[in-house]
Amino acid sequence: MKKNNYISLPVIKRLPRYYRFLDGLRKSGVEKISSNELSRRMGLTASQIRQDLNCFGGFGQQGYGYNIEQLYSEIGNILGVNKKNPTILIGAGNLGKAIASHMAFEERGFDLIGVFDKNEALAGQLIKGIPIRHIDGLYNFCKDNSPTVAVLCIPEENAKDIVEQLVKLNIKGIWNFTHYNILSDYPELSVENVHLSDSLMTLSYQLNNNE
Amino acid sequence: MKKNNYISLPVIKRLPRYYRFLDGLRKSGVEKISSNELSRRMGLTASQIRQDLNCFGGFGQQGYGYNIEQLYSEIGNILGVNKKNPTILIGAGNLGKAIASHMAFEERGFDLIGVFDKNEALAGQLIKGIPIRHIDGLYNFCKDNSPTVAVLCIPEENAKDIVEQLVKLNIKGIWNFTHYNILSDYPELSVENVHLSDSLMTLSYQLNNNE
Repeated sequence: MKKNNYISLPVIKRLPRYYRFLDGLRKSGVEKISSNELSRRMGLTASQIRQDLNCFGGFGQQGYGYNIEQLYSEIGNILGVNKKNPTILIGAGNLGKAIASHMAFEERGFDLIGVFDKNEALAGQLIKGIPIRHIDGLYNFCKDNSPTVAVLCIPEENAKDIVEQLVKLNIKGIWNFTHYNILSDYPELSVENVHLSDSLMTLSYQLNNNE
Repeated sequence: MKKNNYISLPVIKRLPRYYRFLDGLRKSGVEKISSNELSRRMGLTASQIRQDLNCFGGFGQQGYGYNIEQLYSEIGNILGVNKKNPTILIGAGNLGKAIASHMAFEERGFDLIGVFDKNEALAGQLIKGIPIRHIDGLYNFCKDNSPTVAVLCIPEENAKDIVEQLVKLNIKGIWNFTHYNILSDYPELSVENVHLSDSLMTLSYQLNNNE
């Protein structure tokens, strides 16, 4: 399969959406789809869809359309959803607990193997069958289990220290729910930020200016 | 204050970040800052910062810099964080509960006044002092309390029906944690999507291609 070497961030950001959408189609028994039909359903232009998918080697055939199962599986491979990146979650407060129990990590390329919190009262509680461990056990756990990804659900003031530890412990990727700008200190990491309060303020802005 | 009428989405998306950042500065006692210094700390170019802030009427003075308290307060006004948009949350599962208890709605322009779930066993439980109500009471609650914003933390399969009800009940804005594409059916609404699983897959992609 011929691939372009450079794939722009907006295209990458759209891939999960294609993946979700194709998953819905295959589950409802659809076997193939034209770029026109895909565009109508996804609210993108057909030429954008052809362009996006061409970045990854073009799975469509002129006059036939896309084979959904194949496209779904190819995009899944590109996204790495079949990987099992060993993952730990730091911060088992309300948000951390919800993320640990709500997200299908195992269908998205991750294997959640440990949950940590600095609150000793939480130690031993189970989330999805995983015991919450005290943060003091982080070093030994990482030495024994070699996680490569961390989910950060801690207050911002602790984030810098924890990330410094995590980097020393060979963490390569962070799903970051704090506002700490990790990439400014560690540009070599893979970081994906979720800024919930920014999203909420963006909604506030829209309401304020949509009248 | 002179404002440009058209403000592009990327600028709007950066406003919450300015707001957060300025909040940190004011809390640490800083009174003014140059665009150069702000750019160094935020990882944006100084010219981008000047351009962004000019969209809103330019609060800086040549050779003096930005008055932080004033800029913070102006951006807060633009974002509408002092509004009290009456807000309900639908879906008090793990994620809904975490969002209700974790987010400072009242500092972001929202007043969380009701929480609903279809699970009768949850009815009466309190989240941040707000009782969870059964979803059957939605109509009467909205008639009595006129919420204008809804947070959707429900499974995707229920989202379309719930949004149809919410629109009839005069909801104008939705903070959407489902994958239902609300704007394709209701382009007049203010919608802000949080696609957590897309974010997780983007991290997976990065890990898969960052070697």
